[in-house]
Amino acid sequence: MKRTLLALALTLVGAFAAVAQQSNPLPSWSDGPSKRAIISFVEAVTKPGSTDFVPPAERIATFDNDGCLWVEQPIYTQAFFIVDRMKALAPSRPEWKSNTLFSAVIEKGLAGLSGVSEHDLAELVAATHGGMTPADFRALVSDWLATARHPRFNRPFTELVYQPMLEILDYLRANGFKTYIVSGGGVEFVRAYAERVYGIPPEQVIGSRAKVAFETKDGRATLTRQGSIEFIDDKAGKAIAIEHIIGRRPLAAFGNSDGDLEMLQWTTQAGGRRLGMIVHHTDDVREYAYDRESSVGRLARALDQAPKEGWTIVDMKSEWNVVFK
Amino acid sequence: MKRTLLALALTLVGAFAAVAQQSNPLPSWSDGPSKRAIISFVEAVTKPGSTDFVPPAERIATFDNDGCLWVEQPIYTQAFFIVDRMKALAPSRPEWKSNTLFSAVIEKGLAGLSGVSEHDLAELVAATHGGMTPADFRALVSDWLATARHPRFNRPFTELVYQPMLEILDYLRANGFKTYIVSGGGVEFVRAYAERVYGIPPEQVIGSRAKVAFETKDGRATLTRQGSIEFIDDKAGKAIAIEHIIGRRPLAAFGNSDGDLEMLQWTTQAGGRRLGMIVHHTDDVREYAYDRESSVGRLARALDQAPKEGWTIVDMKSEWNVVFK
Repeated sequence: MKRTLLALALTLVGAFAAVAQQSNPLPSWSDGPSKRAIISFVEAVTKPGSTDFVPPAERIATFDNDGCLWVEQPIYTQAFFIVDRMKALAPSRPEWKSNTLFSAVIEKGLAGLSGVSEHDLAELVAATHGGMTPADFRALVSDWLATARHPRFNRPFTELVYQPMLEILDYLRANGFKTYIVSGGGVEFVRAYAERVYGIPPEQVIGSRAKVAFETKDGRATLTRQGSIEFIDDKAGKAIAIEHIIGRRPLAAFGNSDGDLEMLQWTTQAGGRRLGMIVHHTDDVREYAYDRESSVGRLARALDQAPKEGWTIVDMKSEWNVVFK
Repeated sequence: MKRTLLALALTLVGAFAAVAQQSNPLPSWSDGPSKRAIISFVEAVTKPGSTDFVPPAERIATFDNDGCLWVEQPIYTQAFFIVDRMKALAPSRPEWKSNTLFSAVIEKGLAGLSGVSEHDLAELVAATHGGMTPADFRALVSDWLATARHPRFNRPFTELVYQPMLEILDYLRANGFKTYIVSGGGVEFVRAYAERVYGIPPEQVIGSRAKVAFETKDGRATLTRQGSIEFIDDKAGKAIAIEHIIGRRPLAAFGNSDGDLEMLQWTTQAGGRRLGMIVHHTDDVREYAYDRESSVGRLARALDQAPKEGWTIVDMKSEWNVVFK
């Protein structure tokens, strides 16, 4: 009886999945090469009996976040957060006045960030992101996201997510994929909104990490974010983190910059049917147009290697019927 | 139509789950305090409308591996692997002869490991576990597990897993829990058999980690395990890794030694209904009896703190009807 019920249930779930799959799954995509590449890939790896068939448990897809799932211009969203945190904390940190970098950011805002080195950025993150529990940090980010607005679009950052990419996330999940974010941004920063906005739970968010200390205070265990960065999840770090944390080679990877090059290589060079996809920002009317010369989200080496590697380049301007959610 | 099919399917899946749940879920457990504690906990957090109800997505349970899911005496299984690797590699590494530690292990086997420091152990791991891809390492472990046998029980190590704990894994998963291993052992070592033996997929295995390097050779991306340990997933490291990788505080944690103390604290001090459980090895006839004085799996501080923290102590001798699978 149990087995019969289960078999019936699974058959119906399968039937539902098949129906869902057949209806137009990617309405915001024009009928161009990228949409065809995605659908062809998904059909190949999910069709039972196909030589490319992959069991559901092994269907892993990884997505860069900044510039791949949401807007990253004129600068990463987390940089806006840093500026606002610096300003909010400045009155209680008089010692920051004697720090050239910090006072530039406090006085000039984003302009104070232009041309800062990676080392400077790490210092800013350390000064503003530490000294609290991961849960408190996530709550802080969540509160900030509720009111902060993008300077050009005057909308909350969480509305500046790409509708066509949300549809890919949904389409892959409807076909048994587990979708991961693999971001250069802070893991707790992304977790603050990933579940609500992308449907991606905390355990499927991989990102850069602050050092965290465990302490027992009055017999209570606490974790406290420290003022230093332990791991930068970018470039080779993305492939390494995927192996450490997921322990499977992805079937599909989505990126938009040279920071995603190693993740794309690691994914598509694994043998078997794979999908590598690069969102090319070509639409300065609806969003932004940038690649080789951009200081944020530079795309040069990955663009050069794409043809040889068989990666699909998404032309945002012609292939996305809508950009934002 | 789609919605109707889905609703029907989900109802049937729910009915099946309910049937599975009602039949005796933990047959290898005596009707003692531990079994009652587990069932009471699971019923409380899964019953819709209960004040302790937790949505399925947040149902995370973490398990130590050595001594909690499989045997860890007379020494960790990974130590047997190290000894066999040293012996296998020795002919091609003549320089090892001049290393006192290495030659002791090669000549005396496990006896050569007695009393070695953590630093020594790290050196042994570095010498035997590096210089290959994570996938090749996993294959090596898998091949070794297929033939290696436990010296006392003369059975493969993968058969020396605890049947009562397998039943807890199944019972939790049938009730919507995601089950994780959080082990002091190497993450790739555990992944080599966790899916087949425990039903735990690679992305739900957290463990100690070798440093891994990304390289491009002839245009091909490769990951290579280095001869150094990057992270030891023990004690406070377990709580930190849970936050980094899962990003949710577990509802239930299972351990057996002081290495699990911080994971148990982090889990059960979170507020709301939680379960902390310690497997106490009290059966030297069917398995082993050890706690405060053992060099492997020492259990002293966690045992002392258990009453105050409300952790359940499993008395293996009286509560487990069978020990091994």
